[in-house]
Amino acid sequence: MATPTITEHDTTAPAAFGPAAALSCRECGERFPLGPVFACEICFGPLEVAYELPTGDPEALRRRIEAGPANIWRYAPLLPVPADVASKPNLNPGWTKLVKADNLARELGVTGGLHIKDDSGNPTHSFKDRVVAIALEAARTFGYTTLSCSSTGNLAGAVGAAAARAGLRSCVFIPHDLEAGKVVMAAVYGGELVGIEGTYDDVNRFCSELIGDPLGEGWGFVNVNLRPYYGEGSKTLAYEICEQLGWKLPDQIVVPIASGSQLTKIDKGLKELIALGLVEDKPYKIFGAQATGCSPVSAAYKAGHDVVRPVKPDTIAKSLAIGNPADGPYVLDIARRTGGAVEDVSDAEVVDAIKLLARTEGIFAETAGGVTVGVLRKLLSEGKLDPAAETVVLNTGDGLKTLDAVAPTTGLSATIRPNLDSFREAGLA
Amino acid sequence: MATPTITEHDTTAPAAFGPAAALSCRECGERFPLGPVFACEICFGPLEVAYELPTGDPEALRRRIEAGPANIWRYAPLLPVPADVASKPNLNPGWTKLVKADNLARELGVTGGLHIKDDSGNPTHSFKDRVVAIALEAARTFGYTTLSCSSTGNLAGAVGAAAARAGLRSCVFIPHDLEAGKVVMAAVYGGELVGIEGTYDDVNRFCSELIGDPLGEGWGFVNVNLRPYYGEGSKTLAYEICEQLGWKLPDQIVVPIASGSQLTKIDKGLKELIALGLVEDKPYKIFGAQATGCSPVSAAYKAGHDVVRPVKPDTIAKSLAIGNPADGPYVLDIARRTGGAVEDVSDAEVVDAIKLLARTEGIFAETAGGVTVGVLRKLLSEGKLDPAAETVVLNTGDGLKTLDAVAPTTGLSATIRPNLDSFREAGLA
Repeated sequence: MATPTITEHDTTAPAAFGPAAALSCRECGERFPLGPVFACEICFGPLEVAYELPTGDPEALRRRIEAGPANIWRYAPLLPVPADVASKPNLNPGWTKLVKADNLARELGVTGGLHIKDDSGNPTHSFKDRVVAIALEAARTFGYTTLSCSSTGNLAGAVGAAAARAGLRSCVFIPHDLEAGKVVMAAVYGGELVGIEGTYDDVNRFCSELIGDPLGEGWGFVNVNLRPYYGEGSKTLAYEICEQLGWKLPDQIVVPIASGSQLTKIDKGLKELIALGLVEDKPYKIFGAQATGCSPVSAAYKAGHDVVRPVKPDTIAKSLAIGNPADGPYVLDIARRTGGAVEDVSDAEVVDAIKLLARTEGIFAETAGGVTVGVLRKLLSEGKLDPAAETVVLNTGDGLKTLDAVAPTTGLSATIRPNLDSFREAGLA
Repeated sequence: MATPTITEHDTTAPAAFGPAAALSCRECGERFPLGPVFACEICFGPLEVAYELPTGDPEALRRRIEAGPANIWRYAPLLPVPADVASKPNLNPGWTKLVKADNLARELGVTGGLHIKDDSGNPTHSFKDRVVAIALEAARTFGYTTLSCSSTGNLAGAVGAAAARAGLRSCVFIPHDLEAGKVVMAAVYGGELVGIEGTYDDVNRFCSELIGDPLGEGWGFVNVNLRPYYGEGSKTLAYEICEQLGWKLPDQIVVPIASGSQLTKIDKGLKELIALGLVEDKPYKIFGAQATGCSPVSAAYKAGHDVVRPVKPDTIAKSLAIGNPADGPYVLDIARRTGGAVEDVSDAEVVDAIKLLARTEGIFAETAGGVTVGVLRKLLSEGKLDPAAETVVLNTGDGLKTLDAVAPTTGLSATIRPNLDSFREAGLA
């Protein structure tokens, strides 16, 4: 075994990471001490957190979780965080609603039970609060004083808000020509918000450069040098879904794909629950959802490829618009292994699906939620998703953040004068 | 005692309203059967729900509540709803976070404990989901098939979403010239959204006319003919605050004033908890908060008046801009009786307060939240609010809905080229 480089930060007590035991390379399996590193020095593969999860009576663990707080920290025994994490200032995300979507099920012909995991209920109204909360803990452990990221929207707000609450400085990098509304949502938390003249790819390249430079000393980039910890936050979606179903695996789950990380971590979380004896082992299928305008994983799936060919994104689903998804190959593997699929829907189908979900369940989803609900509908019509099986669909963000997507086709039913005759003429009574 | 008119809807079993026993006039005290009525036929005073609340062991009630769902239905034994309300399709609002605001407390010099009750966590991101949920139950009981309201924003979305989920039709009336974003937020749920050529007052007058007309048959207007039930939803804010403080009354609470209903119902809820033995009886002070551009209650309070002189609103805090607040006199009474106060802040102070809360606690509040935090700061500086006492401040809505308020003063720290030199020159490292 190669001797991994121990960084100067890497002297923290293991308890700072709870049950996490090491970082391990997802390509070659090499293990490294828990530190602010994200790529394998042997093969350059991505690192992820490896655990020594609690053994013993599943009932005791279940009771401990159920007695925990109504946020992701109820799962602290399964996350790379210290046991006292809930006592530290953070946004306490998670434990969002799992909504039984009977109206939508009726409309789509789903008979086995349909649920929306509605992550718009998080503090800054996207699932990003989950991943940032774990990265924030790692940043504290490594002694970082600035929390940072590259972002085109949701992540910027989540990082700004989390840093504000934690009393850390934040400095977030975005393309300089982002819509004014998104700039406000990110800047209101008072951290530094830097616009970069260039594309999102330019922003990313700049961040990588900054990490390697003395200028970036003491900076934790949640989605770069803290990425192994950050990614683990998505496991909590799997934990919550199963607990909210009554400690039971769903039969089918539809997950959006941006980098693909979320989907792989949901699979990881489900497998952990089985290994821990918290849910009964049974098959489950994971389906990936993309917008056609950025569907490299779906294209690879349909073509039977193992690798993903990058694309230039062109879709209204901006929060999923990653043309070169790092976890694409893992997503393909999971969809195939579990008997799921990867599918994509057009922007028009995304808008239709947002409105369908709003009209049937009163949930106003971000474009990413339109993608998953649209893909649900498409998979059903193609016969690829079993309508008689229990199904969970993720909504990972809030419609208030992507009003532009539905604005052109959403408006007043009528305009009337303030009298009954005028109302009668409108024919709405 | 006069014999109240029994409407055709008024034959429902009493259990449909749980512990509610009657409607009683807040002016003359006359009691009426529970029905879709809102004004006393003796004196035209407003009606409110009167209860026969559970007697007996407070510990048993407390355990029952704690074992209930993580939403307002945990308090079903104290609300005018059937015992099985949680099993019916609705948005399940409430049980929002009570955030310990240590950073804000430090900045403002509060030493007795400061908490933000953050109702932006509700399904449509304002406290309106609480009141609409109770009105929806009453609408179901009265057999109404259309849920309606007059609104300038938050309420329209809350009604549209709740009706969609419940499978009822909705028809919401708004001024025809509302901002495009607010129209989208209200229309996306698929109900009818009618623009009325006129002011919000014109919209209200039209709704009252419609209720009295055969055209309005089967229509439940949540804030008109269902208003007595609707208002009770605000009691849950009081219940949650006390339970989240560990079944304890706060010393001081700062509440926004629009119609004033919310403040009066919070007082009602606190008094009920005392009467039920769920919290220890002790003094508490309730403070009302208005924007100076619409501050008729604050003006009356400062002038020592018992009546409120209507004003024409002119403030960015649109969700509080009711120039003739129906519950103004009751608010004055409660503020004086509890030893609180009513105060107002300018639009500039509102914006500052929104940014202060975002910067210190990572909570992005609607303008109404800027009003309460701004008033908190002003009351502290005036010595009217005790910094050593435990204080709760309400944030009743979400900053994403009022981006325009902060947009002019919130933006990029810098724009740079994608290289380290350019970043170094910006002086942010």
